Amino acid sequence: MAKKKKDLRRENIIEIAAQLFKQKGFSGTSMRDLAEQVGMDAATMYHYISSKDEILKTICFGIATTYITQLGEIESSDSSYIEKLKALVRLHLHLMTTKGAEVSVANNDWKYLSPEALQEFKDLRSHYEKRFASLIEEGIQAGELQEVNRSVALFTLLSAVRWVELWWKPNRGITLEELENTILTILFNGLEKKQP
Amino acid sequence: MAKKKKDLRRENIIEIAAQLFKQKGFSGTSMRDLAEQVGMDAATMYHYISSKDEILKTICFGIATTYITQLGEIESSDSSYIEKLKALVRLHLHLMTTKGAEVSVANNDWKYLSPEALQEFKDLRSHYEKRFASLIEEGIQAGELQEVNRSVALFTLLSAVRWVELWWKPNRGITLEELENTILTILFNGLEKKQP
Repeated sequence: MAKKKKDLRRENIIEIAAQLFKQKGFSGTSMRDLAEQVGMDAATMYHYISSKDEILKTICFGIATTYITQLGEIESSDSSYIEKLKALVRLHLHLMTTKGAEVSVANNDWKYLSPEALQEFKDLRSHYEKRFASLIEEGIQAGELQEVNRSVALFTLLSAVRWVELWWKPNRGITLEELENTILTILFNGLEKKQP
Repeated sequence: MAKKKKDLRRENIIEIAAQLFKQKGFSGTSMRDLAEQVGMDAATMYHYISSKDEILKTICFGIATTYITQLGEIESSDSSYIEKLKALVRLHLHLMTTKGAEVSVANNDWKYLSPEALQEFKDLRSHYEKRFASLIEEGIQAGELQEVNRSVALFTLLSAVRWVELWWKPNRGITLEELENTILTILFNGLEKKQP
C-alpha cells in the first residue's frame, strides 16, 4: 500500500514535469521549478525521483513502449491493412489528445537523453517506423493500398497528425470525433469528392 | 553594376546564414560564426548586413511574401478548387526542396523576430492560413471536396508536408516527382485503393 502511494506520487511528479518541459523546454526547466510546481520542497521530491534525466527517460520510454505495444496488438489483429493503418493513425491521435505533454516531450526533447538511452530510444523509434512501413508495404502488395512510395507515405501519415500535439485543445470547438473523422477521411479517402 | 554586385553578396550572406540558423538554431549562431563561414572578416560583412536580427527578418519576410504572392496567383487562376489546393501543396513542396534552409528558419526561428516584426509576421501567416482555408471552404461549397472540418483539413494539409523540410534530400533515393506524386495522391485521392 505504501509502495502504491509512492508510485502515484511519482507518476504525478512526472506528469507535471512533462507539462513544464513542454512549456519551457527540457533545458529551460530546473528541478527547483518542478518542486515549486509540484508543491514539495526539493529534498522531499528527491525521495520520489532522482534527477531530471531520470524523468526524461521515464517519459520518452513510456511513450515509445506504449506505441510499440499497441502496434503489436494492431499487427496481430484480423483486420485488413487499411483498418490496421487507420488504427495506428487513431493511436497517434489518441495519445496526443490524452497524453499531449508526454508525447510532445518524447517528440522534441528526446535529444537530451543520456547517450546510452538516446541510442536505445532511436532504435525503438526506428523499429516502430520499420514495422509501420511494413504494414504499408504489405497493404500495397495485398492490393488494398494505392501504389505509393513507402517511405514518403509513412512520413506523410506520421506528419499529418503532428500538428494536433501543438494545436488541438478540447475547448477549441472541434470535437475529437470531428478531428479523427477529418484526418482519416483525408488520409485514406482523399480530400477530393468522388463523383457518383 | 556596383549595386548589383553588393546585392548578390548580401543574398549569398543571407543564404549561408539560413543554413547556419537551421543547423545551430538562431540563438546558437553568432555573427562571428557567420563571417567565418562566409569567408569575410566581420567588419567587411557589416558593410552588407547590419545585424542578425536584420538577417532573420529578411529570411522570414522573404518566405512569407513568396507564399502570399504565389497564393494570389493561384487564387486568380481559372482552375478548379482541387487544382488550386494541389497547386498550394506543390508550392510548399517546391519551396521546401529549393529553399529548405530559409523555410526551416521561417518555420522555427520566427519567434526570435523583434516584437514589431513578430506581430507583422504572425499577421501575414494568419492571413495566408485564412485564405488557404477559404479555398477549402469554397471547394466544399462547390461540391468538389468532401465535407470535412475546414480547420482540421487546413492543418492536416500544411502539416502533412512539413516533414519534407527535415528529411528530404535529393540523394536519398526518392525523386521530387515521387515525393510530389505520393503526397498529392494521399491527400487528394486517399491511401486506400478504390475498387474498380
